[in-house]
Amino acid sequence: MKKYRKERFDTANVRSLLEPGPVVLVSSAWEGRANIMTMGWHMMIGFKPALFGCYIDESNHSYDMVRRSRECVINLPTADLLEQVIGIGNCSGADTDKFALFGLTPEKAGEVAAPLIAECYASFECRLADAHPNPNHPLFVWEIVRAHVAKSRTPPKTLHYRGNGRFMISGREIDTRQQFPNQTK
Amino acid sequence: MKKYRKERFDTANVRSLLEPGPVVLVSSAWEGRANIMTMGWHMMIGFKPALFGCYIDESNHSYDMVRRSRECVINLPTADLLEQVIGIGNCSGADTDKFALFGLTPEKAGEVAAPLIAECYASFECRLADAHPNPNHPLFVWEIVRAHVAKSRTPPKTLHYRGNGRFMISGREIDTRQQFPNQTK
Repeated sequence: MKKYRKERFDTANVRSLLEPGPVVLVSSAWEGRANIMTMGWHMMIGFKPALFGCYIDESNHSYDMVRRSRECVINLPTADLLEQVIGIGNCSGADTDKFALFGLTPEKAGEVAAPLIAECYASFECRLADAHPNPNHPLFVWEIVRAHVAKSRTPPKTLHYRGNGRFMISGREIDTRQQFPNQTK
Repeated sequence: MKKYRKERFDTANVRSLLEPGPVVLVSSAWEGRANIMTMGWHMMIGFKPALFGCYIDESNHSYDMVRRSRECVINLPTADLLEQVIGIGNCSGADTDKFALFGLTPEKAGEVAAPLIAECYASFECRLADAHPNPNHPLFVWEIVRAHVAKSRTPPKTLHYRGNGRFMISGREIDTRQQFPNQTK
């Protein structure tokens, strides 16, 4: 599998990769073990600081790992990682070393203990931002504290889930900048 | 502009249209006036009941309308509505009748006062589900109480925003159902 050479990226611009709604891989670390989960339920919440919200059900092994460590890394896989994305989503870190099973390479992060995934196009290091979680739903609000993105800036082919095993692959790009009165939107 | 003939749709399956992360148009009604906003910061939160989370900044005219009425409709535009999506996002309902300005047709909903948008591929009627909003962020949790989707079930070409006037258009579909051990994922 291809590993991406990444470079630092302005966290204020991570929306360009996350806002279109791709499936992401959440890596976490706790008590010497690392894990990965596949996640599609997430959204941007702020630019500066870069805030990112997501739903992680308590039934996931990663739930306790991210809740206890208060850290994670949001990794952006491209469409060539389809098999890994499906496989990671259909097994549990309780009894599986997913890095080993799926041949993925953990890389040391700069500000959190959770590892980056070398085979992903981008990796966003996150710290839990919100000490007042919603009492009714397992919603997390993360601050993206460091962003790493592939040096190649071609928009990546990402996977967008429709449920029941069906994915949409990201398509063509349209630039309408001249129609925007300012650059803040 | 084309109007879509829609039919009732199982709310447990709305993820197939919302989870890929498209830009949506939020319609609302309050004190005899209707409004529309463009929104990209949203995510699924549950299947049954169908729960949908989103961020609506207080600076939007729609913020007070949805907070007071505790209702809205989430409408899914296709890529041919690009000009309307941009225009609606770049003006305010405080001084604009956006239905009239953008030539969109309000249709009566079944369970909420906010109108459906006839020119959208799908419309999801929502009631505010969460009486415990996050105290730090303007996050809303909605229950989708009725879903209307175009009779044509070809996956729609949707708009996915990257910021700064750039959009990704939804691309091809992949069906991997045979790799899923059950139908709940």
